[in-house]
Amino acid sequence: MYELGVVHRTVDRPARPDVEALAPFGVSTIHEALGRTGLMRPYIRPVYPGARFCGTAVTVLLQPGDNWMLHVAAEQLRPGDVLVAACTTECEDGFFGDLLATSIRAQGAVGLVIDGGCRDADALREMDFPVFSRAVNSKGTVKATLGSVNIPVVCANAVVRPGDVVAGDADGVVVVPAERLAAVTEAAERREANEADKRRRFAAGELGLDMYGMREPLEAAGLRYLD
Amino acid sequence: MYELGVVHRTVDRPARPDVEALAPFGVSTIHEALGRTGLMRPYIRPVYPGARFCGTAVTVLLQPGDNWMLHVAAEQLRPGDVLVAACTTECEDGFFGDLLATSIRAQGAVGLVIDGGCRDADALREMDFPVFSRAVNSKGTVKATLGSVNIPVVCANAVVRPGDVVAGDADGVVVVPAERLAAVTEAAERREANEADKRRRFAAGELGLDMYGMREPLEAAGLRYLD
Amino acid sequence: MYELGVVHRTVDRPARPDVEALAPFGVSTIHEALGRTGLMRPYIRPVYPGARFCGTAVTVLLQPGDNWMLHVAAEQLRPGDVLVAACTTECEDGFFGDLLATSIRAQGAVGLVIDGGCRDADALREMDFPVFSRAVNSKGTVKATLGSVNIPVVCANAVVRPGDVVAGDADGVVVVPAERLAAVTEAAERREANEADKRRRFAAGELGLDMYGMREPLEAAGLRYLD
Amino acid sequence: MYELGVVHRTVDRPARPDVEALAPFGVSTIHEALGRTGLMRPYIRPVYPGARFCGTAVTVLLQPGDNWMLHVAAEQLRPGDVLVAACTTECEDGFFGDLLATSIRAQGAVGLVIDGGCRDADALREMDFPVFSRAVNSKGTVKATLGSVNIPVVCANAVVRPGDVVAGDADGVVVVPAERLAAVTEAAERREANEADKRRRFAAGELGLDMYGMREPLEAAGLRYLD
Amino acid sequence: MYELGVVHRTVDRPARPDVEALAPFGVSTIHEALGRTGLMRPYIRPVYPGARFCGTAVTVLLQPGDNWMLHVAAEQLRPGDVLVAACTTECEDGFFGDLLATSIRAQGAVGLVIDGGCRDADALREMDFPVFSRAVNSKGTVKATLGSVNIPVVCANAVVRPGDVVAGDADGVVVVPAERLAAVTEAAERREANEADKRRRFAAGELGLDMYGMREPLEAAGLRYLD
Amino acid sequence: MYELGVVHRTVDRPARPDVEALAPFGVSTIHEALGRTGLMRPYIRPVYPGARFCGTAVTVLLQPGDNWMLHVAAEQLRPGDVLVAACTTECEDGFFGDLLATSIRAQGAVGLVIDGGCRDADALREMDFPVFSRAVNSKGTVKATLGSVNIPVVCANAVVRPGDVVAGDADGVVVVPAERLAAVTEAAERREANEADKRRRFAAGELGLDMYGMREPLEAAGLRYLD
Repeated sequence: MYELGVVHRTVDRPARPDVEALAPFGVSTIHEALGRTGLMRPYIRPVYPGARFCGTAVTVLLQPGDNWMLHVAAEQLRPGDVLVAACTTECEDGFFGDLLATSIRAQGAVGLVIDGGCRDADALREMDFPVFSRAVNSKGTVKATLGSVNIPVVCANAVVRPGDVVAGDADGVVVVPAERLAAVTEAAERREANEADKRRRFAAGELGLDMYGMREPLEAAGLRYLD
Repeated sequence: MYELGVVHRTVDRPARPDVEALAPFGVSTIHEALGRTGLMRPYIRPVYPGARFCGTAVTVLLQPGDNWMLHVAAEQLRPGDVLVAACTTECEDGFFGDLLATSIRAQGAVGLVIDGGCRDADALREMDFPVFSRAVNSKGTVKATLGSVNIPVVCANAVVRPGDVVAGDADGVVVVPAERLAAVTEAAERREANEADKRRRFAAGELGLDMYGMREPLEAAGLRYLD
Repeated sequence: MYELGVVHRTVDRPARPDVEALAPFGVSTIHEALGRTGLMRPYIRPVYPGARFCGTAVTVLLQPGDNWMLHVAAEQLRPGDVLVAACTTECEDGFFGDLLATSIRAQGAVGLVIDGGCRDADALREMDFPVFSRAVNSKGTVKATLGSVNIPVVCANAVVRPGDVVAGDADGVVVVPAERLAAVTEAAERREANEADKRRRFAAGELGLDMYGMREPLEAAGLRYLD
Repeated sequence: MYELGVVHRTVDRPARPDVEALAPFGVSTIHEALGRTGLMRPYIRPVYPGARFCGTAVTVLLQPGDNWMLHVAAEQLRPGDVLVAACTTECEDGFFGDLLATSIRAQGAVGLVIDGGCRDADALREMDFPVFSRAVNSKGTVKATLGSVNIPVVCANAVVRPGDVVAGDADGVVVVPAERLAAVTEAAERREANEADKRRRFAAGELGLDMYGMREPLEAAGLRYLD
Repeated sequence: MYELGVVHRTVDRPARPDVEALAPFGVSTIHEALGRTGLMRPYIRPVYPGARFCGTAVTVLLQPGDNWMLHVAAEQLRPGDVLVAACTTECEDGFFGDLLATSIRAQGAVGLVIDGGCRDADALREMDFPVFSRAVNSKGTVKATLGSVNIPVVCANAVVRPGDVVAGDADGVVVVPAERLAAVTEAAERREANEADKRRRFAAGELGLDMYGMREPLEAAGLRYLD
Repeated sequence: MYELGVVHRTVDRPARPDVEALAPFGVSTIHEALGRTGLMRPYIRPVYPGARFCGTAVTVLLQPGDNWMLHVAAEQLRPGDVLVAACTTECEDGFFGDLLATSIRAQGAVGLVIDGGCRDADALREMDFPVFSRAVNSKGTVKATLGSVNIPVVCANAVVRPGDVVAGDADGVVVVPAERLAAVTEAAERREANEADKRRRFAAGELGLDMYGMREPLEAAGLRYLD
């Protein structure tokens, strides 16, 4: 399904303030606001605790054991972008380390998601450059085969198109289609406001059974209390 | 083997001071004191470093992808309880997040063990509410099918009955049958005292070979030293 | 291939300053300096964040569920050594805990690598004794069957001979054959110097495409840019 | 929770014809008849295609890497029994091979379920002795530490008590509490009869949408058809 | 990214003879003919040896633990279709068994691919209805929540659109975009013809080194032969 | 530890009849005869049921995603050889398919062991060419980077030197050092003879408890029988 050997230079990114409006929300909140879609598989994990990001996707398709295209992708990055790297097969080699992190940060990138391995994990933590990967692995890669840049990719089972908004935190990584950004941000805000109220009530000891009116449907479903 | 759709309201808990007497001991010490039984499978991990708890079990049996019964269980919690959630099948959805953590903490819970996924991992760390789970996953759940509360459950291969004492730390989670609590605490104390002495001697350079009298049995087993 | 029941007391260790010259380098740098060999499988992970070590290997071959030989190996440790524990089969029991850590540190050990489980993870972190293992597991072991000490072992798919230099950090564990230590250290230094320069240039916004002269070979490989 | 070092000689088995009445049903049918409980985790797999069994449980608790208790358990087997082996920790060593299969078959056993490894897989297939395990592994075991026979065990997350009925086929292994055998058999029969009718109707092209009256609830749930 | 609760009734399928022209080729040949794209992750495996299929995709998006939409999808199947079931999260429950197999075969389906579990594995083999899944699991599902039918889905990391051609054999499952079917079939034919010739030459003892002219580039790359 | 870019043309193979004398024995028997060493990790599995082989090792070290060296290795094969392919990192790509199988069989190879993926699994079964791998995967490889041929390699955690004897069956793969071949064959024969006798006695109903004289040590260990 992939076209190999092409670099799309034009990416239609949402306006920066619109992306920033989504940034404060957690991945789980965004995932709910999306109607529970767009979540990457949970094997994608932050490389260090506290890593988080929110930005616009530049996508890259890699060949296994080959990070040539990451350098090609670096040139296409703009401030506020997240580099999202898919791979044509499963590969846990260390495609990405602190040199590339330095490079793509200098181009404006605010994070990397890679369905593969990364290395220099200590340096990435010290730099506080948020990398989300499926493995940490010293094994390096070669620069020999072409993939593509800024084509739609499937990364950890989620479709990511260039310009989509991608967010990551301790709960994982979620993809927001660019055209739904405003609606999702609004839904996340509503959800958060709603949760703030619920949090207060839960903290005060109110039970979900009462808050959500569950007692009747539970009884209807046949729940029995025994002493 | 499970009865579905029932909530047992009466739990026979050990006395609070007896549970607190066990709390200072580590999971590995308690597991040894139990004669090496009662340990959950090691795939159950703390959601953040430093998470630990010790309390009395309120148990809940969940259906996959459904957290309805967690709300039912919340009402049965008493101060010092740990909520232990088993599932009728393998499921890594995010059954539990910071709202439920707020709720069950307000009811007195000191921790959660779940043979499933949880979410809002950053918030749980900030709250310092110790959750031990098999996965972190944003994917939420529905509220549609009945399980049970306070029946004996099998959680990560360990049997947990309501009122049993459950402890968790970086080494995993262990279950102490309520009726053995006093004996196990005593055994843990003896073991710890014994270990403190050994730790001093090891630190001073004494070898286990001598401390445990291993040289003779090793020789008898045929061990040969070569230069 | 293993000889069981033997302890080699003589280990030919590289000179201490030569080992210390390698210690500042990261595992990924050393792995590159080795021509990308000597890396253990990435399932070997540090037990706590920040754990790192570099030292000379004392090797031990364990039987599954049996840590008797760790005590035998303890006596063979000299200051600056790393204990490298292989197992004759896959086993995630907790072979090693804080007592043994106290003991082998007192003998001079600077770390442990084990293709098995360890326990007392909190205590190991508090002691800052770097342990790299495939699992954390409270399940203890017996002391009943012979393995060997200071024979060449295969640990997580890497061959380790007594006296080889072993280094671990967040990226994993790498083994440097003793006879290649000087050459590898030199190669690591060159690589690091080279990388420092590149890091500066990347940080200043120079692209890898230009720094590495990739534009021509990419074009030759057929890469097309589309607007 | 386990008592170690005991052998219960008395097992209260259901009557043979009652067990045989359940034998024709598949594991999935039995699991449904049980209200979807009693299923072992799906990592327990038949060692060869076509393996299946149904019998009364004699249980054994093993220590990792130690098959001593399998010999102790052999003596407690009666015709029609299935040996169900749990282990105090995760272990994939080869506890069981063709010699033990010959032995327990001679005592009347009709199958083995082991939450561990087995070996001699070719011979087991040739003998057509149904073994369900979590791994195939040549690595043998020792005979050194006590477990127990005919105590309730947790095997692959399911509780099995001596005398319970255990069935296995390509879908996995399920445990039927002895006291529910008659009711479960009856429920399985009803389910099967009901399914036979449905199978005919499905084969004739009737849709589940109509057979189960789903069109209305789907519409109520908001399902929209687009051309 | 997914729209939930919709059923697209119109699917643009390639002509039947065009699909049949692809059917004789193996998955690996098709995957090569596609330029090495379109392959599902290798955890999708045939439920029984020898299972294989080639057909046009009807897609369905399932919710975890819920197979309601499989019945909705059944009505949309036409002769020669393959039902491709994705799930909004990872779930290994048994969504599909012999009743549904009977039903969808009656509607004309020639196979099922499911990024989830299936059950009644023995019956599926006896029916020779090719199912490719990530697990076999007796655990059944409910019929409670809406997904969608005939929307583009991501199944085991591959994008599948309604009307795409999907093929499965022992090597896995591959997806051919409908618009590339003719070109891919032609490329597969060429590859096969080419391979038939190579197979003859290999069988006659000719080496790949000579057939592919590798000796020179290997020497250029620095390969040294030692006696 | 590996030297890259070299091909050793001289392999010291044991005499053919000596290899054939070992061939009838199963992997588990050979592994026992070796004192329980030399076993590859159990993730190496036969690609089809019934696959088995016994031969002399020609070794090859591959780079991930690159099968160039398999062609180089093909030339070094002699009748009765087994090709043992290790990889410098974890990689499940399909390095090997039916064309290469045709080629290396024509050179005399009797099997392949690969710590990576293979493809054309149906064709390999039809050819009955025994391949043991860690995965089946259509994803092909490139021919770009050098490894080595006939150096000692670590394959699935076992050391294999050129000329060692390697055997595979349903239980896995085991490596017999060339210099121990005669002794191991003899030990396997003794073990087999011994087992034949035990098998008869077991089949006649004699218990291991009596055959192995276990009753006394079990009693000494504290085993208690309860009615």
